[in-house]
Amino acid sequence: MTFPVVGMVGGGQLARMTHEAGIPLGITFKLLSDTPQDSAALVAHEVVVGDYHDLGTLRDFARGCDVITFDHEHVPTEHLRALEAEGIPVRPGPAALVYAQDKGLMRARLSELGVPCPRHRLVADPADVTRFAEEGEGYPVVLKTTRGGYDGKGVWVVGTEKEAAEPFRAGVRVLAEEKVDYVRELAANVVRSPHGQAVAYPVVESQQVDGVCDTVIAPAPGLDEELSGIAQEMALRIANELGVIGHLAVELFETRDGRVLVNELAMRPHNSGHWTQDGAATSQFANHLRAVLDLPLGDPRPRQPWTVMVNVLGGDFPDMYSAYLHCMARDPGLKIHMYAKGVKPGRKVGHVNTYGEDLPEVLERARHAAGYLRGTITE
Amino acid sequence: MTFPVVGMVGGGQLARMTHEAGIPLGITFKLLSDTPQDSAALVAHEVVVGDYHDLGTLRDFARGCDVITFDHEHVPTEHLRALEAEGIPVRPGPAALVYAQDKGLMRARLSELGVPCPRHRLVADPADVTRFAEEGEGYPVVLKTTRGGYDGKGVWVVGTEKEAAEPFRAGVRVLAEEKVDYVRELAANVVRSPHGQAVAYPVVESQQVDGVCDTVIAPAPGLDEELSGIAQEMALRIANELGVIGHLAVELFETRDGRVLVNELAMRPHNSGHWTQDGAATSQFANHLRAVLDLPLGDPRPRQPWTVMVNVLGGDFPDMYSAYLHCMARDPGLKIHMYAKGVKPGRKVGHVNTYGEDLPEVLERARHAAGYLRGTITE
Repeated sequence: MTFPVVGMVGGGQLARMTHEAGIPLGITFKLLSDTPQDSAALVAHEVVVGDYHDLGTLRDFARGCDVITFDHEHVPTEHLRALEAEGIPVRPGPAALVYAQDKGLMRARLSELGVPCPRHRLVADPADVTRFAEEGEGYPVVLKTTRGGYDGKGVWVVGTEKEAAEPFRAGVRVLAEEKVDYVRELAANVVRSPHGQAVAYPVVESQQVDGVCDTVIAPAPGLDEELSGIAQEMALRIANELGVIGHLAVELFETRDGRVLVNELAMRPHNSGHWTQDGAATSQFANHLRAVLDLPLGDPRPRQPWTVMVNVLGGDFPDMYSAYLHCMARDPGLKIHMYAKGVKPGRKVGHVNTYGEDLPEVLERARHAAGYLRGTITE
Repeated sequence: MTFPVVGMVGGGQLARMTHEAGIPLGITFKLLSDTPQDSAALVAHEVVVGDYHDLGTLRDFARGCDVITFDHEHVPTEHLRALEAEGIPVRPGPAALVYAQDKGLMRARLSELGVPCPRHRLVADPADVTRFAEEGEGYPVVLKTTRGGYDGKGVWVVGTEKEAAEPFRAGVRVLAEEKVDYVRELAANVVRSPHGQAVAYPVVESQQVDGVCDTVIAPAPGLDEELSGIAQEMALRIANELGVIGHLAVELFETRDGRVLVNELAMRPHNSGHWTQDGAATSQFANHLRAVLDLPLGDPRPRQPWTVMVNVLGGDFPDMYSAYLHCMARDPGLKIHMYAKGVKPGRKVGHVNTYGEDLPEVLERARHAAGYLRGTITE
């Protein structure tokens, strides 16, 4: 059998859903998971339990694979260079990944490319933060550790020089950014393959709660067509210039005066693309696999006018399965995607997708289901 | 975690695709597979390799599960009764399954219910076959072993008493049926849950080649609306009267004079329902799982005007992966479903689904892709 072996580092829900998408392709999916109970490890067949920080573990894992890809962006750059040096395809490669791993480098590169970003610079200490604030509109400003942040972690909105002390305690370089007066957040997601083919998904609206993605609406309602095109072209250009292979999520701010600024980059399947599992002709997971395998990419177009995704976060009710009765009976069209993760408050344990022609109805269905699964809605 | 454990007996592609559908539900899928290389065993996490003919093996497997279901219908009835006696839910149960396993019993029961069938009776020997023929329109007649047939095996069309000798060599009771002058074959598939809820999928046209399913068109083109309703009600009634839980495929003949007659029953996900993976709001696999778990059933409605499935059978070219480049490039909307089975001539190794608004185009896309994957089309 000549079907390739795709190795994914990281056993979270992104890997779980990538394995799901790989099954119909007939490929072999191999997983390097932190523990045997990780979301993806519970459903995949070829599972290696090990620490990706250990180069020996990573190397042994990669040697059995035709290509290596990622459920997260924490694999040390030097390890990935070592794998590449052995001739193992790493996609996306370390040269691209570094821009998802280090926000300081990302900002510098995007600025070099003339890609619109919030006003920003690296800052040395709280006094420097105040100088940065005074270079613009003053406090509040946004401070981010250049490495290690996700789902709102490693990001602070500070209103005073005193508050600005905390980010520096992490011992990592700190990036200051203006607090953008945005009307909403968008995501322009694309997939790019090694030979340069790329597809762009519809630009979506992404609603955050406490720094964590909550609701995604596809496509972004009322988004100016020209601005949508600008956002998609920006994402395609970033993917091309940075040499990204696979899925690239470009999180954007839509400003009050009708422009888009890049907020963050992620070089893997992303929360803002989960809607594609039921709402697009080809899911982000399927297209990510095709891209890392250098296969022709699948149609990214939406299958119906509106698709909504709402995250299911852990609440106070650990028994989510019992909520299925209500949710499935109430909405036979609901698409539930649970991750088989232990329920902890605020933890991403699943998401629901709904689709249809009437946005208020599609939104209500998804919000109700997610709230009921979480336990915040009880009837 | 209170998510249930579903045990499926049989590791073929139906189990593989059921595991795929179970991943987003967060349930635990446990497999009893003949070998470690079976289609489903290659992608599932909880795999037990063992012989389902052995009651001890089956019992040990079932004890770890909340419900048992099937990828095939070969598990001996007495074993299933033993499991039920231990309080393990078996769905569908042996009382229903026997009508999928034994064609003679199936014909008798359907006749009892007044469900239209081809003229038929059990026959004792070739001379009896001739008497059966003479009771009607004469030869040719169809002979079937009452047990063990599938994909055209165990079915003969005989034109003379001499030819009628072969089926009796199997040592199983033989059923004779009139050779129906049908205009086409249809399938009316339904799913039924333990508390009696049921959904009916659109009636599809099923085209066979050499006794094996080749192409399925959903919905059946030009099918009279009233006849479609009759077929769906017939299938729902059969499911209800026979106590089927899970997916029931009712294969039908559409006669020249506009009636439907039941051909075969299958109580599991079925080839005639693979189109639902991409063409319906809820796939047959997802709904089969919901039914055996006694969860509310999902919307069975089609998502677009036409969906076509074409089987990919093994041809002379073992390297199907290399065909992906052409097929995916030619048709970015193509949905490929491969089973990771070794390629042998005529063996079901995958299928492709296409969907759209223009049936000739949708058909051409699916046929081209399946032919190219098989190696019968080379450009």
